[in-house]
Amino acid sequence: MRVALGLSYFGAPYQGWQSQPSAQTVQDQLELALEGVAGHTVRVSCAGRTDAGVHACLQVVHFDPMATRKMQSWVRGTNANLPRDIAVQWAVAVSDDFHSRSSALSRRYVYLLKQSAVRPGLEMGRVGWSFRPLDFDRLRAAADLLLGEHDFSAFRASQCQALSPIKNMLRLDIARFPQSDCCYYRFDFEANAFLHHMIRNIMGCLLMVGDGRCDTDWLRHVMVSKSRQLAAPTFSADGLYFLGPRYAPHWGIPDKDHGFHWLLA
Amino acid sequence: MRVALGLSYFGAPYQGWQSQPSAQTVQDQLELALEGVAGHTVRVSCAGRTDAGVHACLQVVHFDPMATRKMQSWVRGTNANLPRDIAVQWAVAVSDDFHSRSSALSRRYVYLLKQSAVRPGLEMGRVGWSFRPLDFDRLRAAADLLLGEHDFSAFRASQCQALSPIKNMLRLDIARFPQSDCCYYRFDFEANAFLHHMIRNIMGCLLMVGDGRCDTDWLRHVMVSKSRQLAAPTFSADGLYFLGPRYAPHWGIPDKDHGFHWLLA
Repeated sequence: MRVALGLSYFGAPYQGWQSQPSAQTVQDQLELALEGVAGHTVRVSCAGRTDAGVHACLQVVHFDPMATRKMQSWVRGTNANLPRDIAVQWAVAVSDDFHSRSSALSRRYVYLLKQSAVRPGLEMGRVGWSFRPLDFDRLRAAADLLLGEHDFSAFRASQCQALSPIKNMLRLDIARFPQSDCCYYRFDFEANAFLHHMIRNIMGCLLMVGDGRCDTDWLRHVMVSKSRQLAAPTFSADGLYFLGPRYAPHWGIPDKDHGFHWLLA
Repeated sequence: MRVALGLSYFGAPYQGWQSQPSAQTVQDQLELALEGVAGHTVRVSCAGRTDAGVHACLQVVHFDPMATRKMQSWVRGTNANLPRDIAVQWAVAVSDDFHSRSSALSRRYVYLLKQSAVRPGLEMGRVGWSFRPLDFDRLRAAADLLLGEHDFSAFRASQCQALSPIKNMLRLDIARFPQSDCCYYRFDFEANAFLHHMIRNIMGCLLMVGDGRCDTDWLRHVMVSKSRQLAAPTFSADGLYFLGPRYAPHWGIPDKDHGFHWLLA
């Protein structure tokens, strides 16, 4: 039997998704918690391996338990064993040919950015920060260059294990939320798949154009060069959220919106 | 000379505002950071002493430095010395009769609540949680009982040092933000002043009525009794944010909106 879980977590205290000898990863914490419910060793696979410090509104994982448990027990029993900043949101039985990673049609991420003269306090770890003012039209023009199918080698970390650097950027929306003393930006990314550090490397480049240090010709040149050396430094993980994968409806994966609003007005 | 500072912080790692021998408080961290800029011992006073785990969009403090520094140095120099989850947002010179606490006309707080069958993961420490469904009309009717001037002794912690339990609740708005698998609520409180634990004790009682365990007659009885024993247990500090004090305009305190939106849609 195969079970799929939807998982929400705050990534700042963890060394990313993937299991490490330190056990300070989300995968290690989840497997340990599931073992307490299953009564046997559990290995899980996920839809998208998040980096250290990256958050998840909805990570999807699957595993093959030998023990028979109610779906509600995989949620509540596992949550009782997990740290407070990781929580299973749902569990569903799926067919044995479902795979959280290879069945995903696309992935969505959000990057939250605060542009302000002084650094964030309350939102620490939950937003990236730019002290430089940003020009929306320049950001938009830079983002447009990245839409569609491209070789994204210039935004690829050297440790990246993907088979191909060619990905299809289906969406790169930017929304502005001006406040009296700062401005928040939300960058919405969707692609069939992402390379290692691809969004953080793209964010670094978008901000270089948005704050006027570089122009769109520079970004076009960076892309064509396929050279990581020419692109901007990897931007902070703080504001990066995995919104979740998309699957074909026949798999029966809950299609709930696990994004959330923080509601202070 | 007197200087006023606006401060933003995430309260979860701290034992509240007020200085303790452990030094794990916001006041201790701020005074230490200011001393690095001033070159002498600094003691600060604040507008509202937040409890352990309570956050601030805008805490206002004042102090009397002997050293002469630019206002920008009180912001940037202090921020360089502060932990990442505390940040000075602005500094202004004020007249010597300004007092961050006694000059305040009113205080505003927000309580963020998540109502969902399963506990939060990503929002851990930043929202209170109710697994019981809530009825908006019942919440509203309960909140209406608390508006205006009342003796709030039933919601007062035994350690409270306020001179009088009579406070004027100027505002208690409730907004609902339904999502596909949960519902967020924002409770907006404004009063001339608050007793120790008053909002968390009120939140416990509002939820008792909102989820149907008690009715508004019970809440009316609790208020009239002035007995802390009859009221609900103190609710979690997780979702409580100090939005800041209000002052008369002549003091020259920046009137910026330091609330913020978390922007995932």
